[in-house]
Order: sequence, then C-alpha cells, then structure tokens
Amino acid sequence: MSEPQTVVVLNGPNLNLLGEREPEVYGSDTLAEIEALCRKAAGLAGLEIDFRQSNHEGALIDAIHEARKTAVGIVINAGAYTHTSIALRDALAAVSLPVFEVHLTNVHAREEFRHHSYLSAVSDGVIMGCGPSGYAYAIARISELIDDRH
Amino acid sequence: MSEPQTVVVLNGPNLNLLGEREPEVYGSDTLAEIEALCRKAAGLAGLEIDFRQSNHEGALIDAIHEARKTAVGIVINAGAYTHTSIALRDALAAVSLPVFEVHLTNVHAREEFRHHSYLSAVSDGVIMGCGPSGYAYAIARISELIDDRH
Amino acid sequence: MSEPQTVVVLNGPNLNLLGEREPEVYGSDTLAEIEALCRKAAGLAGLEIDFRQSNHEGALIDAIHEARKTAVGIVINAGAYTHTSIALRDALAAVSLPVFEVHLTNVHAREEFRHHSYLSAVSDGVIMGCGPSGYAYAIARISELIDDRH
Amino acid sequence: MSEPQTVVVLNGPNLNLLGEREPEVYGSDTLAEIEALCRKAAGLAGLEIDFRQSNHEGALIDAIHEARKTAVGIVINAGAYTHTSIALRDALAAVSLPVFEVHLTNVHAREEFRHHSYLSAVSDGVIMGCGPSGYAYAIARISELIDDRH
Amino acid sequence: MSEPQTVVVLNGPNLNLLGEREPEVYGSDTLAEIEALCRKAAGLAGLEIDFRQSNHEGALIDAIHEARKTAVGIVINAGAYTHTSIALRDALAAVSLPVFEVHLTNVHAREEFRHHSYLSAVSDGVIMGCGPSGYAYAIARISELIDDRH
Amino acid sequence: MSEPQTVVVLNGPNLNLLGEREPEVYGSDTLAEIEALCRKAAGLAGLEIDFRQSNHEGALIDAIHEARKTAVGIVINAGAYTHTSIALRDALAAVSLPVFEVHLTNVHAREEFRHHSYLSAVSDGVIMGCGPSGYAYAIARISELIDDRH
Amino acid sequence: MSEPQTVVVLNGPNLNLLGEREPEVYGSDTLAEIEALCRKAAGLAGLEIDFRQSNHEGALIDAIHEARKTAVGIVINAGAYTHTSIALRDALAAVSLPVFEVHLTNVHAREEFRHHSYLSAVSDGVIMGCGPSGYAYAIARISELIDDRH
Amino acid sequence: MSEPQTVVVLNGPNLNLLGEREPEVYGSDTLAEIEALCRKAAGLAGLEIDFRQSNHEGALIDAIHEARKTAVGIVINAGAYTHTSIALRDALAAVSLPVFEVHLTNVHAREEFRHHSYLSAVSDGVIMGCGPSGYAYAIARISELIDDRH
Amino acid sequence: MSEPQTVVVLNGPNLNLLGEREPEVYGSDTLAEIEALCRKAAGLAGLEIDFRQSNHEGALIDAIHEARKTAVGIVINAGAYTHTSIALRDALAAVSLPVFEVHLTNVHAREEFRHHSYLSAVSDGVIMGCGPSGYAYAIARISELIDDRH
Amino acid sequence: MSEPQTVVVLNGPNLNLLGEREPEVYGSDTLAEIEALCRKAAGLAGLEIDFRQSNHEGALIDAIHEARKTAVGIVINAGAYTHTSIALRDALAAVSLPVFEVHLTNVHAREEFRHHSYLSAVSDGVIMGCGPSGYAYAIARISELIDDRH
Amino acid sequence: MSEPQTVVVLNGPNLNLLGEREPEVYGSDTLAEIEALCRKAAGLAGLEIDFRQSNHEGALIDAIHEARKTAVGIVINAGAYTHTSIALRDALAAVSLPVFEVHLTNVHAREEFRHHSYLSAVSDGVIMGCGPSGYAYAIARISELIDDRH
Amino acid sequence: MSEPQTVVVLNGPNLNLLGEREPEVYGSDTLAEIEALCRKAAGLAGLEIDFRQSNHEGALIDAIHEARKTAVGIVINAGAYTHTSIALRDALAAVSLPVFEVHLTNVHAREEFRHHSYLSAVSDGVIMGCGPSGYAYAIARISELIDDRH
Repeated sequence: MSEPQTVVVLNGPNLNLLGEREPEVYGSDTLAEIEALCRKAAGLAGLEIDFRQSNHEGALIDAIHEARKTAVGIVINAGAYTHTSIALRDALAAVSLPVFEVHLTNVHAREEFRHHSYLSAVSDGVIMGCGPSGYAYAIARISELIDDRH
Repeated sequence: MSEPQTVVVLNGPNLNLLGEREPEVYGSDTLAEIEALCRKAAGLAGLEIDFRQSNHEGALIDAIHEARKTAVGIVINAGAYTHTSIALRDALAAVSLPVFEVHLTNVHAREEFRHHSYLSAVSDGVIMGCGPSGYAYAIARISELIDDRH
Repeated sequence: MSEPQTVVVLNGPNLNLLGEREPEVYGSDTLAEIEALCRKAAGLAGLEIDFRQSNHEGALIDAIHEARKTAVGIVINAGAYTHTSIALRDALAAVSLPVFEVHLTNVHAREEFRHHSYLSAVSDGVIMGCGPSGYAYAIARISELIDDRH
Repeated sequence: MSEPQTVVVLNGPNLNLLGEREPEVYGSDTLAEIEALCRKAAGLAGLEIDFRQSNHEGALIDAIHEARKTAVGIVINAGAYTHTSIALRDALAAVSLPVFEVHLTNVHAREEFRHHSYLSAVSDGVIMGCGPSGYAYAIARISELIDDRH
Repeated sequence: MSEPQTVVVLNGPNLNLLGEREPEVYGSDTLAEIEALCRKAAGLAGLEIDFRQSNHEGALIDAIHEARKTAVGIVINAGAYTHTSIALRDALAAVSLPVFEVHLTNVHAREEFRHHSYLSAVSDGVIMGCGPSGYAYAIARISELIDDRH
Repeated sequence: MSEPQTVVVLNGPNLNLLGEREPEVYGSDTLAEIEALCRKAAGLAGLEIDFRQSNHEGALIDAIHEARKTAVGIVINAGAYTHTSIALRDALAAVSLPVFEVHLTNVHAREEFRHHSYLSAVSDGVIMGCGPSGYAYAIARISELIDDRH
Repeated sequence: MSEPQTVVVLNGPNLNLLGEREPEVYGSDTLAEIEALCRKAAGLAGLEIDFRQSNHEGALIDAIHEARKTAVGIVINAGAYTHTSIALRDALAAVSLPVFEVHLTNVHAREEFRHHSYLSAVSDGVIMGCGPSGYAYAIARISELIDDRH
Repeated sequence: MSEPQTVVVLNGPNLNLLGEREPEVYGSDTLAEIEALCRKAAGLAGLEIDFRQSNHEGALIDAIHEARKTAVGIVINAGAYTHTSIALRDALAAVSLPVFEVHLTNVHAREEFRHHSYLSAVSDGVIMGCGPSGYAYAIARISELIDDRH
Repeated sequence: MSEPQTVVVLNGPNLNLLGEREPEVYGSDTLAEIEALCRKAAGLAGLEIDFRQSNHEGALIDAIHEARKTAVGIVINAGAYTHTSIALRDALAAVSLPVFEVHLTNVHAREEFRHHSYLSAVSDGVIMGCGPSGYAYAIARISELIDDRH
Repeated sequence: MSEPQTVVVLNGPNLNLLGEREPEVYGSDTLAEIEALCRKAAGLAGLEIDFRQSNHEGALIDAIHEARKTAVGIVINAGAYTHTSIALRDALAAVSLPVFEVHLTNVHAREEFRHHSYLSAVSDGVIMGCGPSGYAYAIARISELIDDRH
Repeated sequence: MSEPQTVVVLNGPNLNLLGEREPEVYGSDTLAEIEALCRKAAGLAGLEIDFRQSNHEGALIDAIHEARKTAVGIVINAGAYTHTSIALRDALAAVSLPVFEVHLTNVHAREEFRHHSYLSAVSDGVIMGCGPSGYAYAIARISELIDDRH
Repeated sequence: MSEPQTVVVLNGPNLNLLGEREPEVYGSDTLAEIEALCRKAAGLAGLEIDFRQSNHEGALIDAIHEARKTAVGIVINAGAYTHTSIALRDALAAVSLPVFEVHLTNVHAREEFRHHSYLSAVSDGVIMGCGPSGYAYAIARISELIDDRH
C-alpha cells in the first residue's frame, strides 16, 4: 500500500515520570526520548508511530480498541497494570495484531508481585531489561512479522 | 407508582466489542442487540432500562452510585473487572438494591483466574453461560423481587 | 416431532428437606412447589419434565446415564455433591445434551468450600441465587438452545 | 415423657469390619460390642439407641433425615466420609438436635488428609481417641444437654 | 489347590458407558470386551474373574469387603472415585490382598484434579494409559505375586 | 497400690477468666467449678487431682516435667498455646503417660487458626465441645487405661 | 517559609458516599466533615490542605504526580484500591514526600482480602481504626517530620 | 468521676533495648522517653498511665487481665509476640476496653512474617510507622472514645 | 520389514545399584536381570532391545535424541530425574514414538516429592509397582501399539 | 582494542533438534541458521561469536566459567534448565558480564511450570517470543552496553 | 585482655530432660555432660562458659540481653522455640556478637514443622546432627572469629 | 586396620570458582586452601582425604557410588544441587556411610529457594556458616562416629 502503516506504542501508569522518578531503577531517559527512539526505529522500517501514555486503565483499553482499525502492531509497556489488569489482557486478545510487551527494567529482579504478567500470554513476545532499546527491538520484530505475511 | 421504575444495566470493559471480538467465545450478538433484548424483557415487566457500557472502572463506580437514587435494581456484566475490582464490589455493597451478576459465557470453562468473582458475594444472584438471555432472566428476577416487596 | 420432549431435572442431597430445613437460607418453597414451577415453565415451551431427587451420588449418576437416551436437556441442582463429585462431572460430560447447573442460593455468599463447583466447567451455564425461578430460567434456556438447532 | 427417647448412633464406611480390620489401628472391639456399650450407656441415662452402619453416603444422609423426627440426639462416626462429605455436613446442619462426632482413634496422629473434618463445625462436640468409650461419653453428653433444657 | 482362585475386577462410576462415552478419550472398547480380555488373561494364569461395575461408592466398598473372603487379588479402576474417595482407600487398606489400580487413559495428561489418587498409596502398583491391556497386566502381576508366595 | 494415684489437670492462658470472659463462648462455669467437677470424677475412679492454671508457657512445661514423676495421666486444656506451642508438644511427648487434650468449646466452629493443634498428635485422645464434662470424660478414660494395664 | 505548605489528602473509591453508605461499618461522618477536621488539624500545624476524592484510579495517580511539585506530604485513604493497585503504589514510591496510609475502619477485622495493602510498604506509616481522627494524626505526624528536617 | 482514669501501656519483648538496639530500624528514643511522652499525652486528656514492659508472654497476659479491672483503655506494642501469640489475642478479646495496637516502625516494610498480626482483629485500631508519637495518638483516640460514651 | 525393530530401554540415576541398594525398597533384582527380562519380553514380540543406564541427565537426553532415528518405542525409568527434569520431558515430547514410564516401586507410597512426574504427561502410559515385570508390560504394550498401526 | 571481542551464545537441552522438533511450537529455523544470524548481528557490531549447544547442565556451567575470562557478554537460551537449574543461575551470577536470557517462544503462553525462570533475576534482560531475532537483539544490546562503558 | 572472655551457651525448653527423654531420638548424654564438654572445648580456646537452660521463652530473651554486655559469643539450642519464636530472633539480632544455632539431632530428618528456624537467618551459622560435639564446634568457631578480629 | 581410611569430600557446581566468585558472599578462601584444611583435619584423626569437585550432577553421583566401596564417610557441599537434586539424595541414601552436608555460608540468610535441601534428610548432620572450618568439623565428626563403632 502507498498509505503508511502505523505501530501504536502504549505506555501505562507513571511512565510520564520517566527520567525524574527513581532514575537508579528506571534510567535517566525521558518518555520523549523514548518516543524519538521509536520514531527512528520505525522510520528505518518504513513505519509510523502513534505514541501515547495514560495513567488510566480505561484510556489504555480505549486506545487498544482504536488500534484495531488503524494499526499494524502494538508495543505496550503497561507499567503496573501489567500485573493487575485482566481487562487490558482481554483488550489485547481482542485485536488480531502482533503485540509485544516491553519493560525498561528486568521485572524479575524486583518484587515477587511484579513477576507475573497478565499480558504475556496474549502477547507475541516479551522484551525486558533492555532499556529504551527494547521498544526499538519490538518495533523491528513487528516489521519483520508484517513482512513475513507478504 | 405511576412513575416508571428503572433497572440499570451496566457493561464493563471490552463489551463494546461484542459481536466483533472473538465471536467463537462471546457469540455474534452485538451490545446493541443485547440492549434491545433488555428493553423487551423490561417492557414485559413494566420496567425501564438504563443501559451503559464503559471501559473505565471509575465510570462504572460512578454509575452505581448514581443508580442508588434512580433505580430499582442493577444488572452488571463487569467483564474482566469482575475478577479484579474490590472497588466495584464496595460500590455494589453500598446500594440497597437487588443486584444480579451476568456473564455471557460460562467463565468456569475458561482460565483459572476467571473463576473468582469479587462481585458474587455482594450480589443477589449470578447467571452465566445463558448468552444474552441471561440479562433477560436477571431483569425478570428483579421484577419478581420488587413485586414480592409490595 | 409429535412425541413430547423431556427435560430431566435432578436434585441432589438434602433437597428433599426444602421448606423445612433452614428456611432463612434456602427459602420456604418445598421441592413439590419447585416441581410444579418446572412443569409450568416446561409447558410454556412445549416440553415435559422428569423431576427427581436423591441423596445417593450413584443414583444421580444412574439418572444422568438414563437421560442420555430419553432427554433433550438436563437441569441439575446437585446440592453438596456440586463441590465434591468428579463422578457426577464425568457423567454430565458423557452426555451430549445442554446442561444447566442451578442453585437456589448464591453459594458465593456462603462458606469458601462452596465456591468451587466440579460441575460448572462441563455445564453450558450456571444460575444461582434466583430461588426456584432459576430452574425455570434453565428450562427456558434449554428450550431456546433446542430451537436454535432446528 | 413416658415415651422413651432415642439417640441415633450412625457408623460410616468400613466400620462393619471393626475387630477384623487392622486391629493395631482400630482396636479389637467389634461393632456389635460397641453397640452393646452404647445401649448400656443409654440405659443409665434412660435413653434408647437406634444403632446403624452403612457404607453408603446416601444411606447415612437418609438416616439423618429420619432422625429429625424420631431422635433426641445423634452420635456419628462417619469414618472416611468425615473428611470428604459436605452432603453429610448439610444433613447434620439441617437437624436441630445435639450432634457429637466420634472417632475410635486419634485421627490427628494419622495422615494429613484425616485432620480435616467437614462435620466438626456443625457438631456440638468431637470426641476422638477414647476407643469405644467415646461413644458412651457422647451419649452421656447428649443426656446432659437434654436435661439442661428441661 | 484344586478350587479355582478368583481375582475381583472392580469398575467404578461411568465405566458402564465405555465405548459410547467420549471414545476419543476412553477408546472404543466396551466394558464387555474388557471383561472378555480379563477372563482370557486370567485363564492363562489359571485364575477366575469376578467382574463388576457400579456407579455407587458404597457398592464398591461392599464388593471390596466381600472380596476379603473370596479373592486372591483385586484390580480396581475406580474412575472418578479414585480422586475423591478416602472410604475406598480405607476399604482397600483393610484387605490383605494384592491390589492394582488401573486406568485406561494416562490421567496425568488430563486435568490437574485427576493427578492425585487416594488409592495409589494403598495399592501394590498402578498401571495407566495401556488401554484395556492394563487390566491384563494387572492380572498377570497378581498371578506372579501369588506364585511367589508358594 | 495403697498410695493414691494422681491425674494432673493443666489449664493454659486466659482460663483463669472462665465464667467472666465471653460467657456466650466459654460458658458460665468458673475454673473453680471445673476443678470441683474433676475432683468428683477422679474420686469415683479412686484417683486424686493436681489442678493447675498458668498463663506462662514455660510454667506449663515445668508442670508437665514434674508430672513425669508424680502422675498417672495428664488432662490438658492448653488454651491458645494449643495452636502455637511446639515446646508444649515436646514436653508431652517426653512423658510416657496417657494424655488427653480437652477444650470446652468446639474449636472447629471458630476461627481457622484454631483448627490446628500441635498437641493432638502426641495425645491419646481429644475431647472438645463437651463443656466442663469433657474434663470428666478424660479422667474417666485415663482411669480406664490404667485399669487395662493391670 | 512565608508561602504556606500544603498536605494533599486523597480519598479513593466510594468514599464520597461516607455517612450514607453502611454507617454501621464506616461511621456517620461525611467526607465534608472529615475535610473540615483535616483543615482544623492542618491549621494547628500551620499547614494547608488540598482535599480530593475520586473513584478513578488514574485520577488518583494524576493527583499524586501533581503533589510531587506542590505538597509537603500525602495522606491517602485509597479505599478498595489499597488492596489491588500496584500503579498507586508506584506513584507513591515516585514521590519523595512523607506518605501516610489511613483507613477509617480496622481493615484487619474485615474480609481476608482487605488484610493486604500494596501501599503500606511504600508509606511511612499506617493508621487505621481511628475514624476521622486518623486523618488528623497523619497530618500531625507529617508536620512533625517536616519540623525534624529543619 | 473524681478518681483519675488509667490507660495501661504494654510493651513486649526486646522493647527494653530501645535506643540501643538497631537504632537505624527502631530510632534513637529510649523506652523511658516514650513513657514520658505517654504521660504527657495522657495528662493533656486528664488520664493517668500505667506503663510496663516485659519479655515474658505470660507476664503480658497477666497485665492485660489486671487491666480489666483498673483501666479505661489499653495501648499495646507487643513486639514480636504480635505475630505469634494467639494467647495475647485471647486476653485482649476478653477485656471490654478500647485497645490500640502500636508499632514504632512500619512493619509492612519489613519481613513477610511481620505482616500478619494476631492482635489487629481484636483491636479497635492500629497505628504504625509514626515512631513514639503513635503511642500518643493511641492515647488521644482512647480519650476520644471514652468521652463519646458520656 | 525384514530389519529388526528396536525398543530403547533407558534407566536413570542410581539404577546401576539395583540389587545392592536398599533391597527392601527396590527388590533384589539387578539391572542385568532386568535387561535379560526385557530381552525375553522383546523376543516374544519380535523386537530387539537397546538397554542403557546413566547417572547423567544430559546422557539420557542424548540417548532419547538418538532413539528418534533408530527405535520404535521407548521405555524409561528415569529414577529421580522423573521428578525434577523438564529437559527429559522436552526430549521425550520431541520424539514421535510410543513412550512408557516405568517405576519398580509404587512411588505414591513414598515421599510426597516423588508423587509428581514431569514425564507422565508426555508419556503414553505409566506402570509402577510391578517390579521388573513392569518393563515387560511396557514392551508388550509398545508391540501392541506398533501392530495397531499396521 | 585491536583484539576482537567475543559474545558467548549458549544453547541448552534439546535445542540441537531445532527445526526438526515440534516446528509448530519452535519454528522451522535450525540451530545452524540461528548461529549464522548471530554471527551476522555480531559482525555489524564488530563482535565475534562463540556459539555452543549442550544437553548437559554441567557442560553449560563449564562454558559459563570459561566465558568469564574470554567474553564480553553472554546470550543464553537454557531451554528447560531455565526452570530448574539454580546451578546455572549461580554460574551466571559469578560472571561480571552482561547476560541476556533468550527464548524463541513466548514461554508464558505455555505450561505453568515454564513461567518461572531461575536465570531472569541474575540476567540483565530477557527477550522471548521474537524467534531467532531475539538472539540478534540480545547481541545488539550487549554491544550497546559495552559501548556505554567506554 | 587479661580478663577471661565468656561464651554464653543457651538451652531452651525440654533440654533439661536430656538423657531421660526419648534417648533414641536425643541420645543418652545429659545436659550436665554437654556442659562439661562445652567447658572443655572453651578451655582449649582460653574461653569461659556461661551455661544456662530454661523452659521460659522470656527467660531466654532476658539471658540474651544480658549477654550483650558480658559475652563474646552465643551458642543457642533453642529447642522447639527455634520454630516458633520471632521474639528470640529479634533478641539475637539485637546483639552484635557471633551467634551459632546448634541442634543435637538433624531436624530435617524429623517433622515438617521442625524444618523452619526463625533463628537461622540472624545466626552466623547452624550446626545440627553432630550430637553434643556440635556445641564444641560452635565454640571453636566463635573462638576463630574472635581471633580473626584481632 | 593398617590400611588408611578415606573420607570422600565432594564439592558441587561453581565451587571451583571459590575465592574468585563473589568473595563478599563466599569468602576469599580457594578450593585448594579448603582441600589443604581438610587434609590437615583428617591427618589429626588418622584419616585420608579424597577431595573432588565437579559441575556435573552425574559425576557427583558416580563419585558417591564409588565411595560406597572405598570410603568410611562422605562430606558433601553440593552447592546449588543441594536444592534441586533428588538424584543426589538417592545416591547418598544408597550408601551406608556417615554423611555430612556442609555449606560455607549460612544459606538461611539468603534467597528462599536456598532454604530447602534435598540432602539434609538423608545426611547425619548439617554444618553451615562456619566457612572452611565446617569441612573440618564434619571430618572430626565422622572420625568420632567411626571410633564409636569400634
């Protein structure tokens, strides 16, 4: 198609504080810098990025529903909702797009309650502990999967 | 009373996708068709319906609070919030109306984490696996309970 | 068919005491009154009822086996066997009929050990906390399912 | 009253083998000897005994139902059904008589799965590890409770 | 001895449906065919077979008690009672005969609740997933054990 | 023997408040009345009573050690230490006397954490829910066991 | 400082119903009365209050983020989100202010699922069961901690 | 009354070491300083203080029993017995006075086994992580509750 | 085929000690005697045996991989690796041959940690407690399955 | 440096079967193709690859020890040892190199026992469900981390 | 120093019975013989011994507090309090001395509830199953640690 | 005997790195220094040492088997295999020699998954947290046990 293809990148609660909040845990990159990195990675693959952040579980669900019609893949860092939201899981399961779960940190090196993800089982893959580059890898993988289908 | 009595029918996250999302699990009925079925069932019992859907937990809580003053009963299909929301449970426990929990599918034939409902213990009854007709049965039962009080 | 179609309604242990036993929990309706209600609901749908009660797990299994050849659907209130009998589950799984599990009370508002049902996963649906009307809803749903097949 | 009062003594599965089966665990007394002991204890208190044994859970439930109309108390050694039968629990809960749970052996000195009893919570008391005398103590206690009511 | 020796083969709930019920799970052999296979295997070893089936837990216990006096070994496929019946376990523990637990299917490849057997710990051995031949192997093993004692 | 034989009756924490504390749970009998009842029961059996109460776990252990040399049996109502004290269990296991655990109430009808006793497995028997008479039954049973040895 | 210092007081789901909802559990004080009490307690310490309530988890997170820049301490009664929201925990962990968790009732005297708080481990302290005064104590403690730093 | 009213303040094991032991965990205040603070807080409310510390569980129980007759309220920091002593719980449940559980530190930020308190469910409230001031808040709350009764 | 067909029989850790090690648990047969028995059983079915033992998990995996190309079935007694090795499970799952798990003893009559097998779910069947004959039954069953395919 | 830097890529049990074994689960790529992909990714970053596979846990540990002296980073797909090997975890913890855990499939969409990894907590990151590309992303990330240090 | 250095050796509940109580479990050595062994081991290292036993948890805590000022190390065999006393743990954590936990028997070969020790995590080491010599090894190790500090 | 007696000292995975790997956890002693210490301790007791290390579970099992014929006792520090290897447990259980489990560190002060040892229950004793001296104590104890037998 001549029309550009979009990957939706969703960021969950507290990720708006990136760079300010506990930098020894989450690193010093801001969300704006991650967005720039995503656009660059997408550009290399001929894709566009729709980059969003919300602290509201419902808003994230709304965004996933919207992506069903507009996107070719979803990258989601759902923050703490990863561990508590079956509703987000159901929303992701309802889209027939490639979905990749990303975490900046290695959640398995943190508290026990962060070791379980409701989203992993309905995602195509999970990338964690690679910092902002994890987003780029997810976008690269989505690009790869789209190409495989052609 | 000459003034019509209202049953509030609340639908939780992802139910706006009904008919489109995994029809082999959730059936092919849309939410609009379920609303129509509810209105028909209510009409037979001389009741009105206030039918709502939201992906936002807070919005569902607000709606329950509102129902405390306007409704004679609540039918709730809270979707995935059924399994995770103590806040919704508390909201339902704060109303002194008949409450029925409805699920289109038989959640006990699905994943383990869908077997527990925070809402059941504060509901009057639970109806699942009856498809859209479950809503109608819940409305019929509310009507019966209201009549018993007169 | 010109020959009438039968729904088997099975009642498990202690349900013969209905109306006498702990009426504040189970209500004041007797099993005979529930049978009458079932016959009325079935009549509306052009169905017949084979209504039974037994305190013996084996007798309930025998009845399910018998229903395989004679019935178009099963409504079962297995009482306490709901929570302990894998044998009843296997019997229900062996029939290729619509099965609905009914409980007069909302078992989720009672002891923890009543929250798990071995039967739910092999039933088409579950209706609880609707009192005797739950039986009628189950019969109505079976009628609906039969009609859908034609 | 001039009419004699009856205590029903119920014995569950495998107790018919008493004296023959693993005497190092269960002792050398036969069930007939225990029945004689019960009659003697009851006689001292001016009570009669209705002494029964069955390997069938349903038959024990039937017997409890029957006792509702004919007895002033129940002594039950439900054998292995103690640990698995919610149906027996419900039957005992449905009678408004003094109920005492008796075990010949100290079940807490045996396998883990024998440490939980579904019956204890709905019994007035539990006596275990006193051999056949446990039955006599239970009858004595029932007699005491009846007298307290007069 | 000149008098023929008997192996009791006990079949629990729902096994009367074999061949008809879910053949993709349980195979297409009927219980009659299994009985024939058992008689053949026993014949080779100079043994007789007493082959029974019941859906009643109590009846199976009664049969085990009876076997104490008449049999040289027990083969038991207790169906779903395998996972729930401590009473059957106690009955088997009360006989001083070789006991083999048989299952047609490999229960470990099925639901979690079928992975635990109350009977295994009091049996001499367990054979599962060998279809009807498992019965034959159990009979052969009993024959071997009897011979070892002479 | 011409020298009188002694049964030590030990009462644990808070039992000094009997009759005053939550009489709806523990009854209206005081500890002095229970002591009198014990003396009476012992007298019938030609036994003496050494009756003690302490709120100190260590003091109860000391008393058990002392009993090793002076007593023919121990009746212990360890109150809340029943559920938490392995040290008391070890002390009882170190005496080679008949030991009976007594509770005034049926602890299985109370909180979950009262359902486990560290003492039961090292006692000969357990009597609960028989009120003060439970002490008398325990003394009677000890008397019986002593007689059996002669 | 000449500029007044602010304590943010956050109230979670269903707390807007205070005074109306289950007064036997939550007391008869309304949220407006609690706000007045907070203002009075803050006034004594020379502090101002920013008092908010929301049924939306996301809105509470937004408010905590805002407080990072404007407040000297946070008092939070997160209602049911206390037990389910890791996102709120992360938001609180991201602020470097004194945080006190308050509950009107003693949650440990209620259902098991209310005994765990995701917020406690990242709070400085927890005050429960002191009714509205708990808010005042939390404000007093924040004032104390601020003073200690000077 | 003209006679002064007393609040009993009980301190459990190891609290005598306060100020010396791990000051980075428990702070640098000594128990004597806490006692002084309590007396000051009580003085403001017209109350007297009976301040005690013991490393002996039994001594703490004795003190609670004594308080039943002499005090108008109890403040208890039971130290490690908080997590292990059902006997202390029973003693507190046996008094019909306001009881407040206090901890200097936020126990939820410490080891898992410190998260459960046997005392909370029988206390009116719990205050933790407020340092010595927590004792003062508890005394203030007791004063408030006493006043409410007049 | 004219070329002989081979069944690989794999024995895991410590089985080289058979006959020497704890003969009261494992019997007095040596591994050499079991090998002879296997060859005899295979011979009756026209099959050959490749019999191996290793204490190295990796060596057993290598052997399974090799069997993929050379064998018509696998009999495996993986000893203690049965309970701990997911790697062996994966190796067995990767072969498309009939696999039977054999244990000389009835592992369910031993320690709890021996009750779970990682291998059962990917095996066709399990035979335990039949001593060396269990190997022969497994070989017979494999022969039967091969014949069924022709 | 003029000397080339090496990334060790370790592959655990059964990965030698890639491409042959269950291709619907693990894909059709062979291990040789993955090695080629790794070399290509490393080449882009100016790194060399030391690519190994073993079914022996001990051999993998030996390889990690060796890498301590020769490598700048480790990529490990430990297969089933991921879930069972604390020894591998300890080996990885003993190296002071960047470590990335890779899985071809999304293990969270598979059996429960594959959801826990002993390696994740001592790795820098985890990449799963990206097929062979996951190896390339891990190598890219190691390159990035090495560059950051310069 | 010219002043002799003291190691406090603490013995918990029931250890006063050593030699008399269950010698097949605890051996035939008396506590006096262990004390002599300790003095001998200490003498070799130029240390003195303060050897104590108490059945009272509080007395053991008091002794640990006392040791803070007088001793250079603590050897503790806390008997059953090992498994239940967090208060003893806290007391040991409050001393800045080497602490060694000793058990005469190998507690891991006994009941499950003896496998967990609250003391191990705050001790420097644990020695069990070495009989009385374990005390000597602990004293030797304390001597070694003291010497290392000089 | 004139022939010298040998104690086999086995060291498991990663112990070859001692002194290099995480010295703050495992200390700065190398395995060679521990071997020297063992030889010295053995020399004092007239014993010889066969000192080995392997990262291969199978090799450790082989070594234990070999020790059955050549050694008078085993000292084993199985490293991480302590927590995962039932095969090692079985190998140790198969030897009739004194076995002592040694750990350099106090594993109870480390991660939860290191608190359970499969080896303890089949060892004579366990010594942990005594550094290299723990090996010496184990050798001394073996010497003592050997002497006791003469």
